[in-house]
Amino acid sequence: MKKTVLFIFFFCVLAQAQDIESPSKKITLHFAISSTGVPTYSVSYSGKKIITESTLGILLKGEKSLDNHFTLIQQDNKSVDEPWNPVLGEQKTIQNRYHQVTFFLLQNETNRKMNICFKIYDEGVAFRYEFPKQENLNYFVISEEHTQFNLTGNHKTFWLPGDFDSQEYPYTESKFSDINTDLVDKNNGIGLKSIAGNFVVQSPLMMKSNDGIYINIFEAAVVNYPVMHLDVIPNEFRLGSHLVPNTLGDKAYLQTPCTSPWRTIMISNDARDIVSSKMILNLNEPSKISDTSWIKPMKYVGIWWEMHVGNSTWDYAGSQNAQNAADGQLKPTGKHGATTGNTKKYIDFAAKNGFDAVLVEGWNVGWEDWFGNWKENVFDFTTPYPDFYVKEVTDYAQSKGIKMIMHHETSGSVANYERHLDRAMELMKQYGYPAVKTGYVGRIIPRGEYHDGQTMVNHYNYIAQRMAENKLMVNSHESSRPTGYSRTYPNYIAAEAARGNEFNAWSVGNPPMHETILPFTRLLGGPMDYTPGIFEIKMSYYNPTKKEQVHTTLAKQLALYVTMYSPLQMAADLPENYERYADAFQFIKDVAVDWQESKYLEAEPGDYITVARKEKNGERWFLGAITDEHARMTTLKLDFLTPGQYYDATFYEDGETADWKKNPKSYSVTKMRVTNTSKIILHLANGGGTAISFKPIFN
Amino acid sequence: MKKTVLFIFFFCVLAQAQDIESPSKKITLHFAISSTGVPTYSVSYSGKKIITESTLGILLKGEKSLDNHFTLIQQDNKSVDEPWNPVLGEQKTIQNRYHQVTFFLLQNETNRKMNICFKIYDEGVAFRYEFPKQENLNYFVISEEHTQFNLTGNHKTFWLPGDFDSQEYPYTESKFSDINTDLVDKNNGIGLKSIAGNFVVQSPLMMKSNDGIYINIFEAAVVNYPVMHLDVIPNEFRLGSHLVPNTLGDKAYLQTPCTSPWRTIMISNDARDIVSSKMILNLNEPSKISDTSWIKPMKYVGIWWEMHVGNSTWDYAGSQNAQNAADGQLKPTGKHGATTGNTKKYIDFAAKNGFDAVLVEGWNVGWEDWFGNWKENVFDFTTPYPDFYVKEVTDYAQSKGIKMIMHHETSGSVANYERHLDRAMELMKQYGYPAVKTGYVGRIIPRGEYHDGQTMVNHYNYIAQRMAENKLMVNSHESSRPTGYSRTYPNYIAAEAARGNEFNAWSVGNPPMHETILPFTRLLGGPMDYTPGIFEIKMSYYNPTKKEQVHTTLAKQLALYVTMYSPLQMAADLPENYERYADAFQFIKDVAVDWQESKYLEAEPGDYITVARKEKNGERWFLGAITDEHARMTTLKLDFLTPGQYYDATFYEDGETADWKKNPKSYSVTKMRVTNTSKIILHLANGGGTAISFKPIFN
Repeated sequence: MKKTVLFIFFFCVLAQAQDIESPSKKITLHFAISSTGVPTYSVSYSGKKIITESTLGILLKGEKSLDNHFTLIQQDNKSVDEPWNPVLGEQKTIQNRYHQVTFFLLQNETNRKMNICFKIYDEGVAFRYEFPKQENLNYFVISEEHTQFNLTGNHKTFWLPGDFDSQEYPYTESKFSDINTDLVDKNNGIGLKSIAGNFVVQSPLMMKSNDGIYINIFEAAVVNYPVMHLDVIPNEFRLGSHLVPNTLGDKAYLQTPCTSPWRTIMISNDARDIVSSKMILNLNEPSKISDTSWIKPMKYVGIWWEMHVGNSTWDYAGSQNAQNAADGQLKPTGKHGATTGNTKKYIDFAAKNGFDAVLVEGWNVGWEDWFGNWKENVFDFTTPYPDFYVKEVTDYAQSKGIKMIMHHETSGSVANYERHLDRAMELMKQYGYPAVKTGYVGRIIPRGEYHDGQTMVNHYNYIAQRMAENKLMVNSHESSRPTGYSRTYPNYIAAEAARGNEFNAWSVGNPPMHETILPFTRLLGGPMDYTPGIFEIKMSYYNPTKKEQVHTTLAKQLALYVTMYSPLQMAADLPENYERYADAFQFIKDVAVDWQESKYLEAEPGDYITVARKEKNGERWFLGAITDEHARMTTLKLDFLTPGQYYDATFYEDGETADWKKNPKSYSVTKMRVTNTSKIILHLANGGGTAISFKPIFN
Repeated sequence: MKKTVLFIFFFCVLAQAQDIESPSKKITLHFAISSTGVPTYSVSYSGKKIITESTLGILLKGEKSLDNHFTLIQQDNKSVDEPWNPVLGEQKTIQNRYHQVTFFLLQNETNRKMNICFKIYDEGVAFRYEFPKQENLNYFVISEEHTQFNLTGNHKTFWLPGDFDSQEYPYTESKFSDINTDLVDKNNGIGLKSIAGNFVVQSPLMMKSNDGIYINIFEAAVVNYPVMHLDVIPNEFRLGSHLVPNTLGDKAYLQTPCTSPWRTIMISNDARDIVSSKMILNLNEPSKISDTSWIKPMKYVGIWWEMHVGNSTWDYAGSQNAQNAADGQLKPTGKHGATTGNTKKYIDFAAKNGFDAVLVEGWNVGWEDWFGNWKENVFDFTTPYPDFYVKEVTDYAQSKGIKMIMHHETSGSVANYERHLDRAMELMKQYGYPAVKTGYVGRIIPRGEYHDGQTMVNHYNYIAQRMAENKLMVNSHESSRPTGYSRTYPNYIAAEAARGNEFNAWSVGNPPMHETILPFTRLLGGPMDYTPGIFEIKMSYYNPTKKEQVHTTLAKQLALYVTMYSPLQMAADLPENYERYADAFQFIKDVAVDWQESKYLEAEPGDYITVARKEKNGERWFLGAITDEHARMTTLKLDFLTPGQYYDATFYEDGETADWKKNPKSYSVTKMRVTNTSKIILHLANGGGTAISFKPIFN
């Protein structure tokens, strides 16, 4: 009897519809429960609706769904405003400031509980589903999530087709109502595509309303859950969650207590608020690594681009049959890149130019037929080719103060990788490799799984965890795009998980606007190993018949080291190319990769980005400015510099006739003395950029 | 031009239909290519057709099939007669004697090659498909194998329903025409069933024709290939291969050069020729382990049956939530079996009675909710429960000269097991565990795979290989039934892979005829860890409300140590039960587990088996005789004993009123002096048996 009274009491005090504001009051979340018990929410920005009434709910396999007949039985409100220091990052300290409200819902007829927790930040709203431990819900299978994001107009969008296996597409810029994956040129160099349908796009989805509001829909802390793509109803301006399935059509296998990832909606009238937001990182769990002293930023070179341009090969024998290795039948073609001798040259170059590390791809047996055959046992991750002496290479690197970066290409055969992981890490520790680049090119084994499904998300996270246990850093390629997990496992220093620079070498490539969008999308979830720094821009340099090129000027390649944040940055071009452009190369040698603070000075998705960053543990600043295919002039105030301090500024700019297509290698390097009261005018060429280093002058 | 001439030459000399005989000429294989280029075969025994014309062929996914338009372009014939010595076995030396012919086939229109290799033994025929390395066939996916086994009449059959996940069924004895899996009582205690259809049975399939010919259809050397079940056309007496798929419907992912397993047809008019055949082992590759000195037979006891009878539990906390372990929330129920103290009692018992080893199940965290939830991360294989001190236990065992057997229950989550395997083996080596019992109870993860599919076959073989690399022995439960792989990896000392004694404790159990069929089916592929030796036969002993019982007499439990060959034999009952029947227990203490030679004296599938074996490295003989539900009297000559040698024979026989149901524990132990000229008369009760030990008397 008493219990009933208590219930009535709750019904009395808990409003079934409520507004909660962000700390600055700019953003307002409205939560309500409909007359049929469906939870809904909407979001306003400065009093204007951005997300109209949208339903929330979860469909379960073989059980009644968790999407209606709910009543609100309790709620918790709290405010948080706390700083934390990332191990590596764009800024030394990140503030985590939001208002939180958790709605405790009861589905009366099944006596099951589900909570919906909202965090309202000044730059957006995040929410997630929480499934508390309870008698009537223990193990369950999610067959779909019914989360809507209903928009208010026909926004401009930058989208990738919803693909369960790849995010390596160029962005399509279109009106919301025009979204249709038929628009995407499929002859784009992507080896494995699993497009989910005409009206499915990926998150993060970057948008801009006709009245200048920037909106970004994404997710954070994807852990033990599949990636969320988005269903699109083009003419109704509606979006809905589309979770990546496995081949059985199941989305997530869960056990209470557990939660969904955070669904995020960032909103601002200033694009810089989106691109500089740390909301995704903030929504992840704090670091689980107590001693992080071994996690270091790295600038590196590697045996890699020479394979992309066709100068050498990953494979040793070119025999199209890796099984020959077992018979000792591998006969060298003479084009193998990862030889002991070649590696030593890269080590020499790295040591001479102040780099931290050298990556070597193609060092291990298996590359003869590694891709495209859905083959389980390709690599063993421990057997080097006969012309690569691990001990000789690592001894030599150590004598030069250079770290070696291990390479684990799985060819999608994850089952095989997990089987060999402990032995592969043992080898790394034996020879002192501090970091690994992983790769997942190809159809996934276990067969029936996709790159972005729950099983694979768990795999990538597992690798980060196991590497952390062994004090090893990870740079993950072809994995699902990060959602801030590098806060929890800071050894997960970078990932690719988007269309990287490499596509320019052998496909239609990345249009000049590509790098102006990535910071609004892919980079929100964590650093990207984009591999900038290509100086020999046209592939005809290597082979006169080739038409491919990087869609850039040389100066823009330098600017990318600043605009594309990563604590792991490659100088991707060949050493000999850098030697021929030593004055430009100086910027790559100088630029920092870990930062005290970052100031986004200008930003417009698809058009341009300008950012200034101050190095961590130093007084130097670096500035990067890039544009899309259009030339651009801009005036910048240097008020971010320390007042009263003089700086030697070195400008790496597009030459007067520079043009990404016609004259990409035209650049100038000039020096100027500046202070924080200086103004500078930048001229960016079509597809161009500017990089500047500011070194304080001390007497 | 020369090539064409050569071709014509081949066409001239190669008969498109041929007969090949076994060494004794009892068995004749007939091979032919039909007018449409379909390879076919038939088999005769003593001039009588046993297999009528049956087609051979392979269907490929997305490619023209390899099942017609073949021409014979070459053939190789050879004879082999060579002995080899198994590391552990029923006999010290095995003779491998057969006539071999390989037919080299060319599919003209696709220019693809496939060979069919036959080995004709005196007790049967084996053949396999071989896919040589070739230009037009590299990677391929088998979507079905079209191998027929067309019979000549309505034989008696002993069959299990075709199930992709379990062989733990009792056999159904029926006419071939009556085969229908609807006949099978599904309330049989099997936790996970995936029955393929009404007219699919498992191999090995044991049959007997109306005129007394015994026929067995099975396979050997299943490596990188799924298990073969058999499609049945009941009224036409036809059988066809039915390979176990994965969830995508694919059967096998292969790359040339490769082969199928051997398909085997054993034939004899004497059932003893089938049960004693070593054809399956002979068809496997020789041992890949060079130093086998660490592979030892083992008689063992363990903390196991006490859980089956309900005296104790595998789990520590009974909380139905293993995740509690992470929170330190496991509260003991007091019923946990695998405690340090209880283990020491078993070690004491083992040491006192001359056993080699002790198995402990339930030692590690995870048993709270280990089964039935398709949960990925159940066990980590290294974390003991708080009341099981690994070091204390292993130190104690070592001080008593007892080996500990590790237990790795995977709950079907193979992905998780493979991830932890290296660390799990590290623990075993650290504490000196020489062997592991593995378990696969539950739906397989990777999700979409079956216990008997290619992926899992590869897993079981992988475990054998990895354990071998670490000098560890494996006893695999709920894995696919062995097909002789223990020849290649002799550390794979035993497996369950059939309905074991345990089912008697908590289900309808195993009918008395069960153990008279297993040697004709399951045991052909390798030793079984059947876990005999149950003295307290009725479960009402533990709980008056229970009606379950072992379908046996006590004496039959002793006879099983001889009739069910395994180099790993458990004394499965509780120590206190053995202490109450010390005179009967003496046989278990005495019986050998590795043999110099074995003589099958009598055998009839479904009715009885009598076998005598001589221990390896000793002069003792042991005899086991068992019957089905019918009492049996038999007279045996002891002419297998050494001439002129006197033996003390101890007879462990059913008591006069013994009966598996009414009076199972009635037995007698008597002694007699015998020589090789003695005759003995055995009286086996309903469901009973006799065990005899023969110890030579030296002056």
